[in-house]
Amino acid sequence: MELKLAFIGFGNVAREFALLLKSRADLLAENYNLTCRATAIATARHGCVLSTNINLDEAIGCVRRKENLAQISGATAAADPMAVIENCDADIIFETTPLDPLGGEPATTYIRRALGRAINVVTANKGPLAFAYHELKALAAGHGAAFRFESAVMDGAPVFNLVERCLPAVKVTGFKAILNSTTNLILTGMEQGRSFDEALAEARSIGVAEANSDYDIDGWDAAVKSVALANVLMGADARPRDVERRGIRDITCDEVRAAVRDGCAIRLIARADSTGRDLRLRVAPERVPAASLMASARGTSNVLVIDTDLMGRLSVFETAPGVEQTAYGLLSDMIRIHESMPPRLNSRASN
Amino acid sequence: MELKLAFIGFGNVAREFALLLKSRADLLAENYNLTCRATAIATARHGCVLSTNINLDEAIGCVRRKENLAQISGATAAADPMAVIENCDADIIFETTPLDPLGGEPATTYIRRALGRAINVVTANKGPLAFAYHELKALAAGHGAAFRFESAVMDGAPVFNLVERCLPAVKVTGFKAILNSTTNLILTGMEQGRSFDEALAEARSIGVAEANSDYDIDGWDAAVKSVALANVLMGADARPRDVERRGIRDITCDEVRAAVRDGCAIRLIARADSTGRDLRLRVAPERVPAASLMASARGTSNVLVIDTDLMGRLSVFETAPGVEQTAYGLLSDMIRIHESMPPRLNSRASN
Repeated sequence: MELKLAFIGFGNVAREFALLLKSRADLLAENYNLTCRATAIATARHGCVLSTNINLDEAIGCVRRKENLAQISGATAAADPMAVIENCDADIIFETTPLDPLGGEPATTYIRRALGRAINVVTANKGPLAFAYHELKALAAGHGAAFRFESAVMDGAPVFNLVERCLPAVKVTGFKAILNSTTNLILTGMEQGRSFDEALAEARSIGVAEANSDYDIDGWDAAVKSVALANVLMGADARPRDVERRGIRDITCDEVRAAVRDGCAIRLIARADSTGRDLRLRVAPERVPAASLMASARGTSNVLVIDTDLMGRLSVFETAPGVEQTAYGLLSDMIRIHESMPPRLNSRASN
Repeated sequence: MELKLAFIGFGNVAREFALLLKSRADLLAENYNLTCRATAIATARHGCVLSTNINLDEAIGCVRRKENLAQISGATAAADPMAVIENCDADIIFETTPLDPLGGEPATTYIRRALGRAINVVTANKGPLAFAYHELKALAAGHGAAFRFESAVMDGAPVFNLVERCLPAVKVTGFKAILNSTTNLILTGMEQGRSFDEALAEARSIGVAEANSDYDIDGWDAAVKSVALANVLMGADARPRDVERRGIRDITCDEVRAAVRDGCAIRLIARADSTGRDLRLRVAPERVPAASLMASARGTSNVLVIDTDLMGRLSVFETAPGVEQTAYGLLSDMIRIHESMPPRLNSRASN
């Protein structure tokens, strides 16, 4: 079976995924009877193209050289990402555009349009889950399309799939989590004696923090992710504005040192607690024992601790993730969509 | 759809599972269109019975009163567990007999026979995975039967399902884990100032350690579990004798205190490392930093850290599990088997 793939957004994550498709082509063919062909790429700064078969190496080269994708052999230019979504001949659209964290756009609009065209969607964006999850889920179901998003929180570590596929009949009653790598890197850097600004500079130098890191530092990123988790895992219909949010901007080296002296550590912790019918969502720096699971998440590591009715307390810990893990999440979503495609679609697509 | 269930072994785990079937009957019917009927129970000390519909409350009452199951209304006595497996009319056999840890019996014999009759099997026993995994897997495939075992290691925490269902295309290259609750409870008890014997007595008093706990203390339980993990997750064909094994019998309070003084903790750690074509399996007490993920597993908690080719390092942490979690593992296996049954079998079984 051949899958036709379209890329809306072709940044680090999408390009790493493209490399993964190439390096694992034999494995996908042998183990999953699956080959892939790229038919569209939409970017903000390198143009948008449609084709019958895009050479992804050529596309990656174009972007690296800061050239326009339109020069790729056999490609036709398209006006913008929406035109690509409207006109692409794809089985799956991979949506990885840069996100406006406070509105979930343009990802949500792109995904809405793709699902409306009955095209399967894989996204690495948390925004659509935090701002429009139930709408998009219903839209996907109504059009018989898949909507997958494992990489949206904790990169490719299975969190959504863990609950959906490995915890049947379980109700998630709450969670606590460390979800933002930049703030965790800053807090653990301060534990090691660096200043806030030094630790932030380090986070920037290794590519974890963006030039504008306010969104991380003020807890917005963790808040949006915790809403995504609550909406998907707990059936909530929350929005980021519902989160009681406090970032780490005011945390001083003195506070961090005092915590260490007391056998503790400070971590930016996202919490969801359901009390009867109410759900309380919080993001705040907390003092936790140094010998705890939460404190053991250092640097860019993330951890999700879920409380359940039948399986007690269960945690997923992701050690020092990078863009490779996010790209893997896209791959796992693609394989899952492939496996769940009805045989009829399978044969149609292979013609 | 109705599933007919047979129980080979009806101890704590199976009885807790029976209670779970009752308490979650509505959820199973509504969410999975699934009802259950018990048609056989085999025990070592309370007899073996066949029936068209065993009242599980009645069976639990019998065992609690130390009476023979043959008095259950409508039940016919059977000679032994093998006779039950031979003659039961069941869609799934739940195998939860007490295990001979050094040979994997009688669980392996029971499972072999059940799969040979093309009956789906769910087991909570690690022994069959450590002594006969590939044989049983092939037998199941040959007879079109399912063979599930999520509860065999780390209770119901998804470890086998995590890799199989949430990490497609991933190769597990190694792992480290804390898999034995008794030794972990002893080591963390010693950290808190108790003697080895006091901590062991505590483990016995809360029902974690057996009267004969040599098997735990000498590292056999962790060794058998690590072989089960290696065989299933890494495709190894190892046996418990292949594990370099050292238990915690010689660990002294002085050593534990010295470790704590150095900012460390002692944990019984199982490791699998693949070096090219060779697999090295080890179980031994190790000094780990007190602020590490491994050290944060205290008391009965377990943790599995897997190294992979595509998803980096990923861990599953189970906090303070009890028999409820093991019973949940059986439930999750049952639901999974139900979901994977072909529609034809579905309709046949519902007639």
